[in-house]
Amino acid sequence: MGRIICAGLGPGDPDLMSVKSDRAVRSARHIAYFRKLGRAGQARRIVNGMLRDDALEYPMEYPVTTEMHFDSPEYIAALSGFYDDWADRLAQMARDFADDIVVLCEGDPFFYGSFMHLYTRLQGRAQVEVIAGITGMAGCWHATGVPMTWGDDVLTVLMGTLPTEDLVAHMRAADALAIMKTGRNLPRVRHALAQAGRLDDAWLIERGSMPDQRVAKLSEVDAADCPYFAIVLVHGHGRRPEAGGVE
Amino acid sequence: MGRIICAGLGPGDPDLMSVKSDRAVRSARHIAYFRKLGRAGQARRIVNGMLRDDALEYPMEYPVTTEMHFDSPEYIAALSGFYDDWADRLAQMARDFADDIVVLCEGDPFFYGSFMHLYTRLQGRAQVEVIAGITGMAGCWHATGVPMTWGDDVLTVLMGTLPTEDLVAHMRAADALAIMKTGRNLPRVRHALAQAGRLDDAWLIERGSMPDQRVAKLSEVDAADCPYFAIVLVHGHGRRPEAGGVE
Repeated sequence: MGRIICAGLGPGDPDLMSVKSDRAVRSARHIAYFRKLGRAGQARRIVNGMLRDDALEYPMEYPVTTEMHFDSPEYIAALSGFYDDWADRLAQMARDFADDIVVLCEGDPFFYGSFMHLYTRLQGRAQVEVIAGITGMAGCWHATGVPMTWGDDVLTVLMGTLPTEDLVAHMRAADALAIMKTGRNLPRVRHALAQAGRLDDAWLIERGSMPDQRVAKLSEVDAADCPYFAIVLVHGHGRRPEAGGVE
Repeated sequence: MGRIICAGLGPGDPDLMSVKSDRAVRSARHIAYFRKLGRAGQARRIVNGMLRDDALEYPMEYPVTTEMHFDSPEYIAALSGFYDDWADRLAQMARDFADDIVVLCEGDPFFYGSFMHLYTRLQGRAQVEVIAGITGMAGCWHATGVPMTWGDDVLTVLMGTLPTEDLVAHMRAADALAIMKTGRNLPRVRHALAQAGRLDDAWLIERGSMPDQRVAKLSEVDAADCPYFAIVLVHGHGRRPEAGGVE
């Protein structure tokens, strides 16, 4: 019986993939990955040129959201059925092929990753291995060229989808901030940062670690010009020099 | 003139190093790393067996803390001088050798890493490159086998050295928690988790991703039995299924 191996791919630069994921991707006969209907998918794009010539690909296409809000009970039910279905299929494939199936995942699979919905469903039904990856947000903080957290800094990771008052409270309480799922929430995120007195220190990063990465001061970005995957960062400044990292 | 390349090594398993760091480490003639006097150093241990036969090693030994509290002005001054001195030496070496110098760093160099103190000092004096790495805390959350953050979860990273009331406030406000620098602060961290109602969900992880990793429920661990580098984690549970990660 084959294993189901989820390979964390890191932030986008294939050279930032772990040695272990690199090996899993290059040696796999069976490769699965999430994508939106009609899109190549970022995970698949990262491994361009790395797959075996005889690799077989299994795109797992998310249910279409048109005319359903992504938070609606209808969409949540559709998504749940989608994960149920692919968990069944992958478990069946691992049995039938008696060969490993590598599932591609951007970033770190255990850090807000879609694979986790398959992972929980596959428990007890297949041998599942998960390979850690560098997170997309780390790719973004490296893109700024500025260290992210020092000494006793508190880092909080927030989603732009949270209520404004929650955003403001966390932005006030933490030293360093990473805000994901910005997109259409960006005007609200920007407003919350301003209320918390953090706007002037905020950066907007797209495609961190990729050749076309973009780094800008958030205060200078046109609000209409922000894709879903951009990440907002506020760096910590900590206590320096400090003894953090001393063994 | 050579570059100074800081190679993030990840959480400890050499296979979790990025392809780029792996290549930098294996090809380097000059290798520098932090360590405590009389210790091999964790960064150096991770690359055991990977160095060129003719590699030259430059251990950067932290000033001795005996009879100085690590937070005292004396120790901070000693540490600052230590970083000044090594920044000078590395810049000089890059000029004199006309060859790259690879500096080894556990985890991700921009995430609470000691190299940042050299990085700021080397600006404008040498060409410095930093290679991202998987954080030690990610190695720990993978060690638990449980996904760390889902959907709209708020993740907060805290140091066990913070005042108890700050610890409790952050522990109440976040969904997922990673608490570093535990060690002698562990009884206080445990107390703060109990006050915040999170103790029963907390895990203690040592050496995540390494062959001798240890994973335990924090409530079941003897307080006397916790090394400095253990990390405490509380997993998020989020909203599931959710659309996070959908492109």
